[in-house]
Amino acid sequence: MTLPVLNTTHDPTRRSWIPSANRPDHDFPVQNLPWGVVRSGPGEPERLGVAIGDLVLDVATVAPILDLPEDDRRLLLAARLDPLLAADPAAWSRIRRALFDLLAAPENPGVPDGALLRLEEVTPALPCTIGDYTDFYASRHHATNVGRMFRPDAPLLPNWLHLPVGYHGRASSLVPSGTSVRRPSGQREDSPGAPVFGPSRLLDYECEVGALLGGANPLGTPVPIARAGERIFGLCLVNDWSARDIQKWEYQPLGPFLAKSFATTLSPWIVTTEALAPWRIPVAARAPDDPPLLPHLVDPSDQVAGGFDLTLEVLLDTAGMREAGHPAFRVSLGSFREMAWTLAQMVAHHASNGCNLRPGDLLASGTVSGPEPESRGCLLERTWRGSEPLMLPGGEQRTFLEDGDRVTMRAWCETARGRGGAIRIGFGSCVGTVLPAPIGMDDTQESTA
Amino acid sequence: MTLPVLNTTHDPTRRSWIPSANRPDHDFPVQNLPWGVVRSGPGEPERLGVAIGDLVLDVATVAPILDLPEDDRRLLLAARLDPLLAADPAAWSRIRRALFDLLAAPENPGVPDGALLRLEEVTPALPCTIGDYTDFYASRHHATNVGRMFRPDAPLLPNWLHLPVGYHGRASSLVPSGTSVRRPSGQREDSPGAPVFGPSRLLDYECEVGALLGGANPLGTPVPIARAGERIFGLCLVNDWSARDIQKWEYQPLGPFLAKSFATTLSPWIVTTEALAPWRIPVAARAPDDPPLLPHLVDPSDQVAGGFDLTLEVLLDTAGMREAGHPAFRVSLGSFREMAWTLAQMVAHHASNGCNLRPGDLLASGTVSGPEPESRGCLLERTWRGSEPLMLPGGEQRTFLEDGDRVTMRAWCETARGRGGAIRIGFGSCVGTVLPAPIGMDDTQESTA
Repeated sequence: MTLPVLNTTHDPTRRSWIPSANRPDHDFPVQNLPWGVVRSGPGEPERLGVAIGDLVLDVATVAPILDLPEDDRRLLLAARLDPLLAADPAAWSRIRRALFDLLAAPENPGVPDGALLRLEEVTPALPCTIGDYTDFYASRHHATNVGRMFRPDAPLLPNWLHLPVGYHGRASSLVPSGTSVRRPSGQREDSPGAPVFGPSRLLDYECEVGALLGGANPLGTPVPIARAGERIFGLCLVNDWSARDIQKWEYQPLGPFLAKSFATTLSPWIVTTEALAPWRIPVAARAPDDPPLLPHLVDPSDQVAGGFDLTLEVLLDTAGMREAGHPAFRVSLGSFREMAWTLAQMVAHHASNGCNLRPGDLLASGTVSGPEPESRGCLLERTWRGSEPLMLPGGEQRTFLEDGDRVTMRAWCETARGRGGAIRIGFGSCVGTVLPAPIGMDDTQESTA
Repeated sequence: MTLPVLNTTHDPTRRSWIPSANRPDHDFPVQNLPWGVVRSGPGEPERLGVAIGDLVLDVATVAPILDLPEDDRRLLLAARLDPLLAADPAAWSRIRRALFDLLAAPENPGVPDGALLRLEEVTPALPCTIGDYTDFYASRHHATNVGRMFRPDAPLLPNWLHLPVGYHGRASSLVPSGTSVRRPSGQREDSPGAPVFGPSRLLDYECEVGALLGGANPLGTPVPIARAGERIFGLCLVNDWSARDIQKWEYQPLGPFLAKSFATTLSPWIVTTEALAPWRIPVAARAPDDPPLLPHLVDPSDQVAGGFDLTLEVLLDTAGMREAGHPAFRVSLGSFREMAWTLAQMVAHHASNGCNLRPGDLLASGTVSGPEPESRGCLLERTWRGSEPLMLPGGEQRTFLEDGDRVTMRAWCETARGRGGAIRIGFGSCVGTVLPAPIGMDDTQESTA
């Protein structure tokens, strides 16, 4: 890939005329400028926005005053990111710069009051039309942990070290942060060979990083690894809710299906790859006896900047905890720096057979887990199949999710203080609360053959 | 389900004022009226059409003269099927009746010349926006054959008889009939543990039946089995091209991915469920010692009309055969009546976890194979992993597909002659020709680590 270049928009000493953007602990300083789509209320139209401090800039409203070519301005008039994603990375960069100049000016250069919405008063929507959603399995710690549970002798399958294993997910059930998630029903093999149909009893979350793609490669035309990084417009958080009991019974031989397709939650803001440039780090080292990579997945610059130094946090609070006033419990704190495969390798692998990746396609990394128990990104691993329950404030325990539980995921990059000013490039929160299974699907009414 | 009801539009004695529609061997009599989208040339706009004889009726052109409520007419003005699929089945039926009345009149009731295009002069396009594509594995013969090759002791996995196994496919690489298909490259494990990257050597087709869905169920709301059939607007043919060597290496544990996502071909015409009503038959019997079905998949009317008596044919011709003037070789002749799971069961299963199925979603049945070798719907089975090559006219042999090979799939229902007139409800042809792998990806340049 082309190594990331830093410019004025990354200068941690720059401040915005919007005071809340300058708080050092805030997710959305002027160096971030993440994209999202919001509504100001139910039934209100979608509006394309950029988060700044505790506000959202309605981008269409300020398009006329941005210092940009007319073609770039036109990309900002849509309600969603679709036209911007179809444009080229040079346009993404010009627009970032123009928004930075607008918001990092010494004083308001003419942004009308109506162009700024309060973050707490808007509801997130999906950022764009997502044609296809692909989920990977790219954390070595996660794949090894799950493998150890089911195949203690050979946790990693033979292909895992040669390619980023992935599968097609369901696009229709992608939902924005804040959408409640209904517990799915399905077939569970409670006793061998005798499945019952009823609500999942092993409902889990998976904390993943999503890559929203821009640009397009025609069908039949692979994307070389050196160009794959350019296809990544930005990153978000993905909660890939999973019903472990449904998954275990259904997944052979064609992979996960209904265990995942009931809902997948996206965080509200797409943090651009360009905003993350200061946090590019070498990709996690392969073990000395790992097999060498095949050439179509080798990018020498990965050893410099293939990864992202991104911290991931998962919080849980139950209905009981909220009622008793307990704060949410931190279930895990992990890092995307641990990933064995880069997002660019996922893009190159995905297109290596000629598959066309379209603007708005979403790739997710798979559960991000680190080496310590506290950095494991799903309950299956965190409670080791339920054998090590979590002890929650107020006395409740959890192995898997119960109705009313709320899962909140957060992510951020931080500059070490003292390196010219402390800033935090945050992703906001990816939130979902579990609703009971549909009426008629509770445990007392489950069906057997 | 509601049992299919026959009406005037099914009367096999009715004739059209378009002479070619009345030929007894023709795919598109007035009783068929399948939907498609065509272009009259490259760069020309898409037009929504209905096939009749050797013509295509441009539906938007005749919408004003159809005897229909204004809301129904509006559905016909789009270039694609999207609005019609979002409407309810009663509208589908009213529109079918109005088109039948127009085309089965004793003489042309005022269809302008420009509204009829010659089939041989148009190019098929995709029928609608296909949000999600799901592929099943619902032929017992196919699953048993493939299982026997890899697991002789236990060909069917434990879940197979309890649920219709399926997985998410790739929507972006769905292409209309006539699109050439580039041989994919990928990782092949030619010798154990040492994959190479290069063009697939085991390229295959899979002959499947597709169900195009209409209507919508909100996320979190299952579709009861008794209502699932109403969601199926119509059927088409699907060639689910498969790279067996890529599949074998990649598919554990998350299922097929790049082995399928390089292209999937759809036939040009969507034959409506209503047109197929006379060919509804009891679903294939389960074996006496099969486990009982769980209640959410049981529809008593399946024993009367759960299946479709639909014949499927696969033809192959090579570049050499075409040059020598040999006709295409019939590789298989099978029937959709052999399927162990109904399309409605696939719909109900898919939505049983609350997954939202949207108008335009495509479900495919999986390879349709019957009990005889001649009825097996893919080369993997037909040549038994390459051990029984096909002998082609002109002396060539085939185990898997070579560059230049052309695969043509056809399907039809027929009334036994003497039952009031012989008609054939045909699907047209689903055609694709294999192109060589991209330059730089030929066998002499494949890469090893």
